[in-house]
Amino acid sequence: MKHCDLSLYLVLDPVLCGGAEGMVDTARIAAQHGVTVVQLRAPQWKKRQWLDTAQALKAALDPLGVPLIINDQIDVALAVDAAGVHLGQADLPPAVARRLLGPDKLIGLSTSNAVQLAQAPLDLIDYLGVGPVYPTGTKADASPVIGLPQFASLMAARTLPAVGIGGIQAGGAAAVIQAGADGVAVVSAICGQPDIAGAVRALRQEIEGARP
Amino acid sequence: MKHCDLSLYLVLDPVLCGGAEGMVDTARIAAQHGVTVVQLRAPQWKKRQWLDTAQALKAALDPLGVPLIINDQIDVALAVDAAGVHLGQADLPPAVARRLLGPDKLIGLSTSNAVQLAQAPLDLIDYLGVGPVYPTGTKADASPVIGLPQFASLMAARTLPAVGIGGIQAGGAAAVIQAGADGVAVVSAICGQPDIAGAVRALRQEIEGARP
Repeated sequence: MKHCDLSLYLVLDPVLCGGAEGMVDTARIAAQHGVTVVQLRAPQWKKRQWLDTAQALKAALDPLGVPLIINDQIDVALAVDAAGVHLGQADLPPAVARRLLGPDKLIGLSTSNAVQLAQAPLDLIDYLGVGPVYPTGTKADASPVIGLPQFASLMAARTLPAVGIGGIQAGGAAAVIQAGADGVAVVSAICGQPDIAGAVRALRQEIEGARP
Repeated sequence: MKHCDLSLYLVLDPVLCGGAEGMVDTARIAAQHGVTVVQLRAPQWKKRQWLDTAQALKAALDPLGVPLIINDQIDVALAVDAAGVHLGQADLPPAVARRLLGPDKLIGLSTSNAVQLAQAPLDLIDYLGVGPVYPTGTKADASPVIGLPQFASLMAARTLPAVGIGGIQAGGAAAVIQAGADGVAVVSAICGQPDIAGAVRALRQEIEGARP
């Protein structure tokens, strides 16, 4: 399995970041101040814009040693030699992704309940995204909210590295770590914040302070 | 360059065909009666549905010797070993597609005017889709209508095999061939027609009758 520090996982939102340029600026500042993974997610975009933005993000993140994960679009990930992809349950299956990407790329899988967790192909993927932990406004097709008690039981059951995702804001990250997650994935807790560096540092401090 | 008979090129529409199953049925009947290429195009779909439908289409078309082209999604084309991809101007560039697909897959490119035609990378692609020839209702983000006189001048200028596309119905195909196209691409002239076999045979007859 490929190692990846999942502590603070930023999922970029095109609207909250004010477009592609804002996404690259947000990612750069966030990676300089403690974000450990960056995911490009822009379901409304055409692929030319995915490609251009992924290339710009990779150029910004590679010197900082922060991996770039591409949501869903395996062709874009291949085109820019991204660190990996993140797949939802309705995206291409992990077996197809692994075949196309080869053994060295990260593959993450979104799971929202115990059944999806049990069905996750452990030999094909590298980490899990589990959520939504809290209610979220940044994903139109989000699954039902899990809540912290159920999230903790999913964390106890999983055997792969996992991040909690969904509505995690400053002040809500510590409980996710205490529930057993390796890290937290955030969107609006960083994207669109007036002080991105400060927001990242505070989140990272909250996460590290909550470790067992 | 890979050879491909472009005479009658069917672009499947999920709504007009009544969903994935209807697309596969439409493609099978159409291929049995004279369609020479089938393209899967479903911009609203998630990739799992793309994959499942592409696999079903390939299983239906391979025995008939009719190539399956995947619109836009190079990862899906790779996953099912499709005959090739069709790219719009805002999709991944032909150079990226060629690198990901290798030398043996077909790559088509949509062009809507003389500038796009002049910029098409002739060494990287196998055919052109040129349109919309007529007004069309099946593509929300279609370019301005070209019209037959301008279409004929684009046909005279191009050096690659080309199909006309956009609003081509029975009775309108002959003029497209007479304007210089190698074939016609249709959507609603086949998808959703009460007699698909008859519609295909009539179109094919119209096309062959219009050849110089």
